[in-house]
Amino acid sequence: MTFAALRAHLSEIELLDGVAGTLGWDEQTYMPKAAAGLRGAQTALLSRLSHERLTDPRVEGWLAGLDPRDPLEAACARNLGRAYRRERRVSAALVEKLALARSEGFAAWIEAKKDGDFGRFLPSLTALVELSLERSRAIDPDRHPYEVLLEQYDPGTSVEGLRATFARLREQLVPLLRAIQAQPAPERLAQPFAEEGQWKVSRAIAAALGYDFEGGRLDAAEHPFSTGLGKGDVRITTHLREDDLLGGLGSTIHETGHALYEQGLPHEHAGTTVREAASYGLHESQSRFWENYVGRSRAFSRFLAPRLAEAFPGAAPEADALFRALNRVEPGLVRVTADEVTYNLHIIVRFELELALFEGTLKPADVPAAWNEKYRTYLGLTPPDDAKGCLQDVHWSAGLFGYFPSYTLGNLYAASMGRAIREALPDFEARIERGDFAPILAWLRTNVHQVGHLHEAPEIVRAAVGERDHVADLIDYLWERMGEAYGVSRRGAG
Amino acid sequence: MTFAALRAHLSEIELLDGVAGTLGWDEQTYMPKAAAGLRGAQTALLSRLSHERLTDPRVEGWLAGLDPRDPLEAACARNLGRAYRRERRVSAALVEKLALARSEGFAAWIEAKKDGDFGRFLPSLTALVELSLERSRAIDPDRHPYEVLLEQYDPGTSVEGLRATFARLREQLVPLLRAIQAQPAPERLAQPFAEEGQWKVSRAIAAALGYDFEGGRLDAAEHPFSTGLGKGDVRITTHLREDDLLGGLGSTIHETGHALYEQGLPHEHAGTTVREAASYGLHESQSRFWENYVGRSRAFSRFLAPRLAEAFPGAAPEADALFRALNRVEPGLVRVTADEVTYNLHIIVRFELELALFEGTLKPADVPAAWNEKYRTYLGLTPPDDAKGCLQDVHWSAGLFGYFPSYTLGNLYAASMGRAIREALPDFEARIERGDFAPILAWLRTNVHQVGHLHEAPEIVRAAVGERDHVADLIDYLWERMGEAYGVSRRGAG
Repeated sequence: MTFAALRAHLSEIELLDGVAGTLGWDEQTYMPKAAAGLRGAQTALLSRLSHERLTDPRVEGWLAGLDPRDPLEAACARNLGRAYRRERRVSAALVEKLALARSEGFAAWIEAKKDGDFGRFLPSLTALVELSLERSRAIDPDRHPYEVLLEQYDPGTSVEGLRATFARLREQLVPLLRAIQAQPAPERLAQPFAEEGQWKVSRAIAAALGYDFEGGRLDAAEHPFSTGLGKGDVRITTHLREDDLLGGLGSTIHETGHALYEQGLPHEHAGTTVREAASYGLHESQSRFWENYVGRSRAFSRFLAPRLAEAFPGAAPEADALFRALNRVEPGLVRVTADEVTYNLHIIVRFELELALFEGTLKPADVPAAWNEKYRTYLGLTPPDDAKGCLQDVHWSAGLFGYFPSYTLGNLYAASMGRAIREALPDFEARIERGDFAPILAWLRTNVHQVGHLHEAPEIVRAAVGERDHVADLIDYLWERMGEAYGVSRRGAG
Repeated sequence: MTFAALRAHLSEIELLDGVAGTLGWDEQTYMPKAAAGLRGAQTALLSRLSHERLTDPRVEGWLAGLDPRDPLEAACARNLGRAYRRERRVSAALVEKLALARSEGFAAWIEAKKDGDFGRFLPSLTALVELSLERSRAIDPDRHPYEVLLEQYDPGTSVEGLRATFARLREQLVPLLRAIQAQPAPERLAQPFAEEGQWKVSRAIAAALGYDFEGGRLDAAEHPFSTGLGKGDVRITTHLREDDLLGGLGSTIHETGHALYEQGLPHEHAGTTVREAASYGLHESQSRFWENYVGRSRAFSRFLAPRLAEAFPGAAPEADALFRALNRVEPGLVRVTADEVTYNLHIIVRFELELALFEGTLKPADVPAAWNEKYRTYLGLTPPDDAKGCLQDVHWSAGLFGYFPSYTLGNLYAASMGRAIREALPDFEARIERGDFAPILAWLRTNVHQVGHLHEAPEIVRAAVGERDHVADLIDYLWERMGEAYGVSRRGAG
């Protein structure tokens, strides 16, 4: 009885969140410009209605009545209990102050980034860090405030664990990058490719990987995203540019990976918090696995090349050139266009700065200098201005501290999953080459997607791949891939 | 204080309805097929949330506290008071029964129409009529039950008034139609026109008429509609077919007319019920005015012809052939494709049958025979089956009884407005011909759009056009237009 009542209640939250998601999708694809103010008011109302339901005092009683011996009820007690406690402990006044600071922060960031003027964003950043700190303390005064932030994206992630993982990762990326930089870089694909052909290929790839277009669609958006709005409605967007074929296709594959997870969730468990992704890091593992582990493989280049040749007769690259172009490594200043080897260094910079901000050892005013120093050390580059430096990402302006580590967690999980899938499917490469992705998707469906949030992400990964060292898996994989693309060898590299 | 609290409350209803409207737009344009079930659950929830707010017991107190000397508060008391009383008097059980009957009715109608099998729809029709009757009696047991239905679309419309209006209209359409049928019919545009060019022309026309694309967009939909979702978001859809240039452009202009009304509403009065269309009939007058009064005029043909020539080089009709094709009259069986002269006869058939159903003089089982008999009498045609007869419209399957008369009310209002605008703008035709629609829109903005629902539709029309006989205006206008297109003359025609 308790569980049935709770499910009905939670289903309403899911519906409201799906509605808000649909409006969010519309906002980034088709919404008329002049509707921005209206849309803000609509989503604020929906978010209030959803929040009112999540913090409804009846939830406490329902939670207490759940049966811990039933796996579904136990998972619901854990997931919902955490969200309920977090939300209830934060005062309405603080929620409002944070919402205001975010909205002001976003506007200030837009201006600051336009002019490369960090000073313009500094008051907002200061306020957002302070309010987030206050929020962390309200939620749990006894825990590391940054860990409280991490919990909303990847529950169970400890600051100390991350610190150790990231230190090892950084150490081991250095010799790899050095070995790569000693080799000549593969050529870029310099020629333009008509967008119409890119759309066709994008759709064909998404369908080939297993994305169900009956329950989704692919549209254009400035910043690609995918969004699960509920059963039968999981949409993807991408950004294709004539002069960046591989970037566009990469976005499509990345978002398809996210969408495959959403389409594969256990929708029969609506209203239980089990029909949701287990964590941001696990979500990211699904996009990265397809984008990188599969999508940058030599086998995938062989699958893709004839399809490109069909879409762009006479202009498409051969499989081998395609493979090398896909794996071109070049340290740069911008995270979102970074290659697979340097990407995690961008994340480590952000993690270290966030941690310092929340431990009080870095003042917001000193962020630009610290940022530039770390880029010099880890990537050998100095941003010409803050727009290409510490102002490049939207996250901080939206108060999303603790989010960045999930990207690297995704890369780590994906590497171990790739390893496990290759062990389970000895003809992994041959299947990719002939476009037979179904058994790969089936493995992910069984081991990740259909589990939903019945267990926490680290347990799901452990059950799927065994007790593995994710850092070792990622580094091994990168050496192997770069060995193929650059001819580098780990022996003697350090 | 009361009014401020009420406005905040009503603004929430407006936002919820706008959100539901956005989902409705999505459903008919881009939604993945598999999301149908999810969408049903989402809109049911939104409609419940909106209904809960409308019937919130606090509304009664707020209504009582409004100041009748303030025009805005007085209008709000009238509009909201009516809606509140109507909704409060209907039991939740009846609301649920009706919702269920509609949902079943729609499914049954789809099947029945597919097979031309009225028997399949009869149980639903019977239930829907009975439940609607019960609802009318609950709302006001002392009024004609059909009038109670009319009130939700065009408040202030009496059964007796409509009966007299429609009888006069029918009588006067007969000699006009007879005169037209004695003449050779103008030729149709037989050749195909590429859809891409039609989209360009559609967009150009909508923009020329004054539709603001910054606050809207034009998309494809199976059944064209327009939808006002709030300030800055008023969208139109159309259905273009290669083999029906004029039908498609007519749809675009029709929906643009609706959208101009929505864009012109007094958005500063959000949360007062004054920022809404005054009635369905008045809404329809705006679409019909642009579609017919302007869009089928000789002047508009002269405006349109060069634009078509540009979009379809060498293939577009001359202005004169265009004008005659636009005004081709031919009695048919289907309302939605009917010409301007016979359209109202289709409405009169439906009005008479609905009235008989709600007065108990016609049994649902006898609808097909009665329908066919009326088509024989009024249009000289007999449907080959019920799919092309009494099953052609969706309205009854959705329980929308009393809706059809609004279409003809729109035509009547539009004719009188056309008359008044031509008096106010002596160079009306010359302006249309050169695409200078701004003063026409300005007249509508001042006299109709910006009034919102401050007054009831009949008062708005009276203030705009004076005390006029709308039937006479419509008939005069049709004789004039048909005189130009067919060379018919009223003298001696009856």
